[in-house]
Amino acid sequence: MHKSIATVSMSGTLPEKLEAIAAAGFDGIELFENDFIGFRGTAGELRARAADLGLSIDLYQPFRDFEGMPEPQFRKSLERAERKFDLMQALGVPLMLCCSNTSPLAMDDQALAAAHLHELAERASRRGLRVGFEALAWGRHTRYYGQAWSIVQQAEHPDLGLILDSFHTLSLHDDPAGIADIPGDRIFFLQMADAPLLSMDVMQWARHHRNFPGQGELDVERFLLQTLRSGYAGPLSLEIFNDVFREASNRRIAVDAMRSLRYLENRVLNRLQTVQARPEPAGVVQGPQAQVQVPLLSLPPAPSLKAIAFVEFAVDEPHAELLGAVLQKTGFTREGDHRSKAATLYRKGHAALVLNTEPGSFARARFGSFGASVCAIGLCVDDPDGALERATALCSMPFDSPVGPGEIVTPAIVSPGGIVIHFIPSALGQTGLFGADFALERPWSAADAAGTVIDHVALCLNLDQRDTWVLFARAVLGLASEAREQYADPYGLTSSLGVSSGERSVRLVLAVSQSQRTRATLAANAQGGVAVSHISLSTDDIFAEVRAWRDKGVAFVAIPGNYYDDLATRFDLDPDLLARLRNHGVLFDRDAAGDYFHIYTEDVSERFCFELTQRSDGYAGYGASNSAIKLAAQAQAGAGRGTELARRSRFV
Amino acid sequence: MHKSIATVSMSGTLPEKLEAIAAAGFDGIELFENDFIGFRGTAGELRARAADLGLSIDLYQPFRDFEGMPEPQFRKSLERAERKFDLMQALGVPLMLCCSNTSPLAMDDQALAAAHLHELAERASRRGLRVGFEALAWGRHTRYYGQAWSIVQQAEHPDLGLILDSFHTLSLHDDPAGIADIPGDRIFFLQMADAPLLSMDVMQWARHHRNFPGQGELDVERFLLQTLRSGYAGPLSLEIFNDVFREASNRRIAVDAMRSLRYLENRVLNRLQTVQARPEPAGVVQGPQAQVQVPLLSLPPAPSLKAIAFVEFAVDEPHAELLGAVLQKTGFTREGDHRSKAATLYRKGHAALVLNTEPGSFARARFGSFGASVCAIGLCVDDPDGALERATALCSMPFDSPVGPGEIVTPAIVSPGGIVIHFIPSALGQTGLFGADFALERPWSAADAAGTVIDHVALCLNLDQRDTWVLFARAVLGLASEAREQYADPYGLTSSLGVSSGERSVRLVLAVSQSQRTRATLAANAQGGVAVSHISLSTDDIFAEVRAWRDKGVAFVAIPGNYYDDLATRFDLDPDLLARLRNHGVLFDRDAAGDYFHIYTEDVSERFCFELTQRSDGYAGYGASNSAIKLAAQAQAGAGRGTELARRSRFV
Repeated sequence: MHKSIATVSMSGTLPEKLEAIAAAGFDGIELFENDFIGFRGTAGELRARAADLGLSIDLYQPFRDFEGMPEPQFRKSLERAERKFDLMQALGVPLMLCCSNTSPLAMDDQALAAAHLHELAERASRRGLRVGFEALAWGRHTRYYGQAWSIVQQAEHPDLGLILDSFHTLSLHDDPAGIADIPGDRIFFLQMADAPLLSMDVMQWARHHRNFPGQGELDVERFLLQTLRSGYAGPLSLEIFNDVFREASNRRIAVDAMRSLRYLENRVLNRLQTVQARPEPAGVVQGPQAQVQVPLLSLPPAPSLKAIAFVEFAVDEPHAELLGAVLQKTGFTREGDHRSKAATLYRKGHAALVLNTEPGSFARARFGSFGASVCAIGLCVDDPDGALERATALCSMPFDSPVGPGEIVTPAIVSPGGIVIHFIPSALGQTGLFGADFALERPWSAADAAGTVIDHVALCLNLDQRDTWVLFARAVLGLASEAREQYADPYGLTSSLGVSSGERSVRLVLAVSQSQRTRATLAANAQGGVAVSHISLSTDDIFAEVRAWRDKGVAFVAIPGNYYDDLATRFDLDPDLLARLRNHGVLFDRDAAGDYFHIYTEDVSERFCFELTQRSDGYAGYGASNSAIKLAAQAQAGAGRGTELARRSRFV
Repeated sequence: MHKSIATVSMSGTLPEKLEAIAAAGFDGIELFENDFIGFRGTAGELRARAADLGLSIDLYQPFRDFEGMPEPQFRKSLERAERKFDLMQALGVPLMLCCSNTSPLAMDDQALAAAHLHELAERASRRGLRVGFEALAWGRHTRYYGQAWSIVQQAEHPDLGLILDSFHTLSLHDDPAGIADIPGDRIFFLQMADAPLLSMDVMQWARHHRNFPGQGELDVERFLLQTLRSGYAGPLSLEIFNDVFREASNRRIAVDAMRSLRYLENRVLNRLQTVQARPEPAGVVQGPQAQVQVPLLSLPPAPSLKAIAFVEFAVDEPHAELLGAVLQKTGFTREGDHRSKAATLYRKGHAALVLNTEPGSFARARFGSFGASVCAIGLCVDDPDGALERATALCSMPFDSPVGPGEIVTPAIVSPGGIVIHFIPSALGQTGLFGADFALERPWSAADAAGTVIDHVALCLNLDQRDTWVLFARAVLGLASEAREQYADPYGLTSSLGVSSGERSVRLVLAVSQSQRTRATLAANAQGGVAVSHISLSTDDIFAEVRAWRDKGVAFVAIPGNYYDDLATRFDLDPDLLARLRNHGVLFDRDAAGDYFHIYTEDVSERFCFELTQRSDGYAGYGASNSAIKLAAQAQAGAGRGTELARRSRFV
């Protein structure tokens, strides 16, 4: 499908926007009027610049409050329209968007609205232009696509058609089923927008909080499916009003936009194939339908992630020494050095960590100046080549690292913010993977690979990376979003979202904060927008593990006694268990399915620590109810009272 | 009145919050439960620390969803309450807040709710504690204070009373008139909160967007008045859930909080005196009322600002030279040097600008490293001493600068962010003021002081300075808020708010942006949170003035031709006028009252420029509809293409 995006959807001056849009591979743009008015150049110059970049200008939306107005306003609008038609001809834009009237002066008269739109279309037609009418969710009299379609039918003009926008339909909980019954060639344009579900005025919601399909919670897939069933074969476009996108890197946002549309197209193809294999129950789609007229993007299936194979840190030598010492205190074994790079493998059960000190490597160049930073994550998957093919088709950059003789070549990509994701063949197994690349100091037995796994990896993101990462996790990694949690850092609200694989064998937690002063934002800012803030290691006996670590000199974030006094009033806890929690400084949470025990080490590098975790009976979360307490404890511990490593690392 | 504030209202760890609250002069706190749970110390230690700081702990709110629950939950809550009563005794907190139940399990049965609350109060009573019941705006069955009062009456327990919160009443548009009829001693506590008017879910509104009285748009004054008329004589407290306050400097927020309450108290006193002089019409307040039992804060009246006497820049010598040259190009005359300081006066009509290069001065120390920054503003007022007295009573810091022999002593204060505000006696006149302090190079005639005035001064604020400045402008400077405008900077949405004196002879415009990349935020950040971004000079003939400036070599921000093509479709403009606007690069706006012509110079220092303004017929705004175009033009001009001064100043 021809892919287009409204210039209002991103940050920058118009020339900057065009370059980002073209670089992401779009075919066209919707030109936002204020972007043109603020542009230093003529319509002809803009047309030429867009053409040079391979972009058509598909749509222009020069006014509001047109149809159904009293005579003087209507005449005035027509005059204005003629001037805008002049401009559209100069720009080479074939289609004008006219959205439903919101003015209190608008009359509730579909016949009059139809007559007005007929007149507008007739004038457009004389110049070889067309007009599309769209129902705005907060229109005065026309809010639903069904009403707009009724007016278009009454207007009876070949150059007047319908424009659809998924947000305006889905935000009102209107059913898109009827779209399939509209002749596809009467739909002139399609705008796709997603959004988080928010309880607020629909106009404010629309103007500040839309996002790209796949980033929000609306059923945009079904909306597109119904539109394609009408026989629609026009552009697939994005008109996204989002306060954060206006601030973010427009190169990244343009990539998100393209990823979003390609992912959407592919999901619709999958749904169509499922439906064709198993017809929908009667009533879901009624009436005669055209065939889907356009070929849709086919992709390898979303990867089914099996495990976190390893996490790799980029470190300088002093940090490697310090971090290695911490790992040995926490029960990791130094397994050996990489055969061709300056990297060392540490392992505890299934949890494998690599400390990479290779000078001049991508990891060191990108992350090495931050102390100890996670630069790569290995994920086990059955079909690594398929995962890579899908990722690159969804706009991820492949990552090629130098490989020594006999070493394993694993497909890899760069995730948003720069952490490399390696797709590791599940069949390889731990010894298969590490035995090839590392000179292991001792053979591994099956018993070695029992016990500890990485429960989850927690990332801190700049706010403007949130929707980027949600889409990346869903589309590229095939992870599903879990519940969103919000909690108070002492210096600002923070929210987090878990994303996990089907069997929950891979879990990531994404934390963001609006505040510039929270731990999440400070951690993210320090590493260019995305940083791993902790790695959570599972255990079957958290109390024994805590004692063992403590005996070796590991310090944990101190939890106040008040927490345990309150815990006793919130849960029915055995007094012995409560005493053990208190004595060990372990945090506790419970959901409908099970219990969660967890504890955090003091920072072992700037804003990086380990969590020790024990889950029982299918507890689904990450102890978010304890996050405020943990963050307050970290803040009260202060920057000056970390472990020896943290203290030393600030001066490295 | 005893003044208290909930610890949830501000940023930091609990010890940091207590210090800020005490430093601002509060008498007590409401202890937010999570703040206590996260506190590293016992209840006794907290009690002692608060007492050391002169703070009582007035209120504790340990649970929700209490009244009207089924038996097992009710019993469980009672057990929990006993543990929390233990804690309250250890903390020395006399009062527990119980807010109305939001649980879907809650039964719609006032008698049951009353019985449950009776039981709770009876248990509290045995320990010498009391319980207050508050209607939450999103309670399941109890949302209005009238309902809560009815339940309290039915419960019939001397240690159960009502707690009022202005937000919960005013957000539902409930009438506070009836509060005056409640016996004041049955109201146990009063929480005052303001808020901007937002169309969103009331719970989200309440939890993220409340602000201090005087910062928002609710009639908090009338609410307090009605509460005082009941005979209430308890604490006046603030419980403010605000996302931005959680991120901001807690020292400043605590000062805002105290300013807010003192301002509120004084406004209520004024309203009471007005009402006593002229009884309210029947129906506004019904029924028998107690007298107001508490003395309220009396203050000198809000200053009636007459004019902007001068604006002073802190500059280093190279900037003084460059800025002086620009001023002479724009028609300012160098009038002379300060008698005792390294400062030079420039004047054009009524507009006076001072360039202060005094080494070691406050201005240079605070602002001198930023190039050319506004460090002080002089405002003409009839009673400068009264203005100072009021300002300091409202928590502003007085500012004393060294004064040479024979020079004028003007009362001065420090505004939020550090710009000094001088209160200048109106009677002094321009020559009176400047003749004393400056060695004028020539005598001034009446004709000199005609023409140009400073139309407005535009400030860029960090987002977390917005509510601080709104309250300061209203309470301390006596300015009224005008309409809020929102527009797109190419790098993020920006909003602005005008504040003006009664006769609009003093106008300030406050711009803020959530984005870290906008001109507003970059300007504010560069100067520690508050920066003057432009000074607008009025003219009677903008076209002649533009030509004169241009002839002298002043460069203006270039407005694209597309702007004028669009202008022709928006307004009925005489073609000659349109051509003149286009030829001169002047922007145009029109409101119901009149027209606005304006133009901006290119930056004469980093993100600082002059605006030239012509208002006709009472146009009220600041051309906000043109802001996006101006900002796009500034962005396209780029940092590299300013005036010579701007280019040179970056290397100074």
